[in-house]
Amino acid sequence: MNFPSKLIENAVSEMAKLPGIGKKTALRLVLHLLKKDEEHTVSLAEAITNMRLHVQYCRHCHNIADTDTCAICASSSRDKSIICVVEDTRDVLAIENTAQYKGLYHVLGGIISPIEGVGPSDLNIESLVKRIPESEVKEIILALSPTMEGDTTAFYLTKKFKPYNIRISTIARGIPVGGELEYADEITLGRSIVRRTAYEL
Amino acid sequence: MNFPSKLIENAVSEMAKLPGIGKKTALRLVLHLLKKDEEHTVSLAEAITNMRLHVQYCRHCHNIADTDTCAICASSSRDKSIICVVEDTRDVLAIENTAQYKGLYHVLGGIISPIEGVGPSDLNIESLVKRIPESEVKEIILALSPTMEGDTTAFYLTKKFKPYNIRISTIARGIPVGGELEYADEITLGRSIVRRTAYEL
Repeated sequence: MNFPSKLIENAVSEMAKLPGIGKKTALRLVLHLLKKDEEHTVSLAEAITNMRLHVQYCRHCHNIADTDTCAICASSSRDKSIICVVEDTRDVLAIENTAQYKGLYHVLGGIISPIEGVGPSDLNIESLVKRIPESEVKEIILALSPTMEGDTTAFYLTKKFKPYNIRISTIARGIPVGGELEYADEITLGRSIVRRTAYEL
Repeated sequence: MNFPSKLIENAVSEMAKLPGIGKKTALRLVLHLLKKDEEHTVSLAEAITNMRLHVQYCRHCHNIADTDTCAICASSSRDKSIICVVEDTRDVLAIENTAQYKGLYHVLGGIISPIEGVGPSDLNIESLVKRIPESEVKEIILALSPTMEGDTTAFYLTKKFKPYNIRISTIARGIPVGGELEYADEITLGRSIVRRTAYEL
């Protein structure tokens, strides 16, 4: 595309670096900003810059925070005997939205993936293992994706936890609520039968 | 969603104001920025702010420009006897990409739409009518969308052009190149027969 203005071209090419945003979408977004008031663009630019430069990570669980201890780790109403291990902040948000979990978290910052060159030392694993003797943890829940990488990471972690006398659990795999049996894949359906649970009224 | 950080929350809500970007996508984009280097975010923020604060509009055709006359209006190689009237800058880019048009443009900045409260006075129509006696224009091409609003705008414009002795044309409507006859809508197919053109080898 031959842009009529260098300023537009720069803005479009910066926007198009975002994941899932191509040149055409970027141009649409830029022309949208151009139609709206200047303050709109300025506050967007300030919000992302402030976020990027000032956001912190909790020194306990590595979740995103405004201070060096996140609200969850600082809260006195959370159950400090359970740590739920997740891949990234989005998983924390997803679990928090269920309102079913009252323990603490630990954000790994990724999963072990030899293909993408992510090894255990690139993740927040050392600090997780350190948390066990230093705290009152009794159970660790592995809430990782049911993929090759997720399973590898889970396997690596369980070996690291072995020296400590703690319960290790993983989130239940099975048919999603509202999901129809005939559309479920064989592995999920198979597991849901093998790991059947007591019927609750 | 309960965000772990006010900074993240602000950035997400600003991002989510962009068209076609919801809260979930905005969060994904923000977390992406957080994973990348700081310079990445800073240059995005600077690019959009610079664009918004410093972009200009050509005083002749109202297209986006870096100076007060756009590159097309300033070019000596363009045919100054034809003006192509379009809704916005994206249409200029689309027509320029075809490399089939060598005349000038006029960007209306919208189309007449009573439903959205856009009247003729909100568009760059006065300046278009003024261009006719002031220049060597012999033909005006109306390249507007074939919608109710586009037709209304075209009708309004042709009435405005009546006092002047110029040719008024509109882009051809018909079956798209590569389009299959059986899938074309009746109106398009009907028009393409009524307005058939001489067969060219």
